[in-house]
Amino acid sequence: MKEAFIGLDHGSGGQASHELVKDIFMSRLDNEFLRALDDSAVIPLAGQKLAVTTDSYVVDPIFFPGGNIGSLAVHGTVNDLSMQGARPLYLTLGLILEEGLPLEKLIPIVDSLAEACSRAGVKVVAGDTKVVQRSHMDKIFINTSGVGIIPEGVDVSSHNAQPGDAVIINGPIGDHGTAILSQREGLDFRTELSSDSAPLNSLVSDILTVTLQVHVLRDPTRGGVATALNEIARQSAVGIELFEETLPIREPVLSACEILGLDPLYIANEGKCLVIVPKDLAEQVVAAMKRHPFGTEARVIGAVTAENPAKVLLKTAIGGTRIVSMLTGEQLPRIC
Amino acid sequence: MKEAFIGLDHGSGGQASHELVKDIFMSRLDNEFLRALDDSAVIPLAGQKLAVTTDSYVVDPIFFPGGNIGSLAVHGTVNDLSMQGARPLYLTLGLILEEGLPLEKLIPIVDSLAEACSRAGVKVVAGDTKVVQRSHMDKIFINTSGVGIIPEGVDVSSHNAQPGDAVIINGPIGDHGTAILSQREGLDFRTELSSDSAPLNSLVSDILTVTLQVHVLRDPTRGGVATALNEIARQSAVGIELFEETLPIREPVLSACEILGLDPLYIANEGKCLVIVPKDLAEQVVAAMKRHPFGTEARVIGAVTAENPAKVLLKTAIGGTRIVSMLTGEQLPRIC
Repeated sequence: MKEAFIGLDHGSGGQASHELVKDIFMSRLDNEFLRALDDSAVIPLAGQKLAVTTDSYVVDPIFFPGGNIGSLAVHGTVNDLSMQGARPLYLTLGLILEEGLPLEKLIPIVDSLAEACSRAGVKVVAGDTKVVQRSHMDKIFINTSGVGIIPEGVDVSSHNAQPGDAVIINGPIGDHGTAILSQREGLDFRTELSSDSAPLNSLVSDILTVTLQVHVLRDPTRGGVATALNEIARQSAVGIELFEETLPIREPVLSACEILGLDPLYIANEGKCLVIVPKDLAEQVVAAMKRHPFGTEARVIGAVTAENPAKVLLKTAIGGTRIVSMLTGEQLPRIC
Repeated sequence: MKEAFIGLDHGSGGQASHELVKDIFMSRLDNEFLRALDDSAVIPLAGQKLAVTTDSYVVDPIFFPGGNIGSLAVHGTVNDLSMQGARPLYLTLGLILEEGLPLEKLIPIVDSLAEACSRAGVKVVAGDTKVVQRSHMDKIFINTSGVGIIPEGVDVSSHNAQPGDAVIINGPIGDHGTAILSQREGLDFRTELSSDSAPLNSLVSDILTVTLQVHVLRDPTRGGVATALNEIARQSAVGIELFEETLPIREPVLSACEILGLDPLYIANEGKCLVIVPKDLAEQVVAAMKRHPFGTEARVIGAVTAENPAKVLLKTAIGGTRIVSMLTGEQLPRIC
């Protein structure tokens, strides 16, 4: 690390985050479980495979179109477990509250959190609340950690992509990030932008019913689809080709990105899932996803190649090719 | 809840914290695991009993005599698992950092955290880092969640105290809270105050080697010994008598409390453990604790009674009796 101070980009999920993890954390805390750097750690326990994950949520604003920090904190951690192929079971809930937070703000957040748990079929089994003096923090931060069980025969990891695999996504990208930004900045794009925040465990369960040969599952949150695919390409030592014209992006998201000078490939999603499976299974998997409410717009958006290892290439609509790098800098602070 | 806003006392671990948990959280998130309200949830999994816990640390200052927020975040969560009789195994680490935090502050914190993990024999298996804009939070907040295994035959819970049991503590009280306060206020009591922050898992393991008939283990952190014993008295529907003259308190802690107008019974500890066992086992348990580095000053400090259920009584040195209530108000914000 060259910088002597923490910058916003260290929390972006992109290049600076990776360097922080590598230089400061991995060198000191390294162990066989942490080293995998997947969405969840996989821990053998009593003949079972346990998935364990943690996430803190500092999203600003705390209420946004499509959800609030409470539902987001449940969906995000449920999804991190799901991306390991795990069945999410239990969450812990760590709240840090600012002195003076009105209960009329806290209560709807806890209501959403409870409803999200109920929809996702998970239970909060342990909790902790701290209060920090007024103006020493911003309203409410939430940590949810999660535990799930990985069914027998499931072996999903960002290290498992193979040349010949297809890259599938369950729907349009960029909704969460643009919804947060438009709300934060008080922008009015006329058309409604709404976060895609959703629990993906039942969608993943449907996919695993079609085939256990799912190589990679990944939710493209901070850093967006571009950063998630770069991580997979690096960790699996493969190339990934992305077909620009197949990328689903809603019209209002495109407009918002154009006005704001943002690239939808780097925008955070909170209800999206990249699914990498052998090409000959792709059609079946897409069909199963389309039958699920969170996968109606599922489609193949790319291919895994032996060429260009650790790189992501975008095949543009007009036939060109450009390299899609990992997010550098901080596109959008406190997106989740 | 009468108040319409979150106050500092909602994070104190005392009466207001209890009301917040009951009125806002339990009513919405209730389930059989959360309902126990012990230091950790106990979850049956594949024929084993899993202990799961979470804690966020917002201590101010982040460096203090005897430790820093990094070591504290490991010890605190290791202890919450230990107080369930569990063998702590895995931690998750959620960091929220303020933009501009110097790496020369972050690095020694991560070093301490790593060293504390190594000493306690636990591994950080998953992590997450978020960054919040400058002046929108205070330096660094840490969440650690933990997973452990409860050995067969161990059934420790704040609901299990029985009349006739003895109450044991492993050493002097009030060290952590007075050390934090003296550091924060820049006070100089001449004599050195130092936090007792320590991992208690091996001490608990030694106790369980003497007997599996340990009824209650509890670390008197926020709210101190008084609040912890009140919780046990309520949850076990028993009375607890505390013998004032046997209560170990260091001289500098007494002086600090006198000057600051604080009651050592309500001061947070981070390396102390209340142990409740049948009276006839107390001597053996104390002897085993005294052989452990964190238990050299172990002693019996009280007794569990059938009389005065849900109440804690202090038998004073001069022969009087007074009721010791749960902490009300916030004695000391951001103590952990």
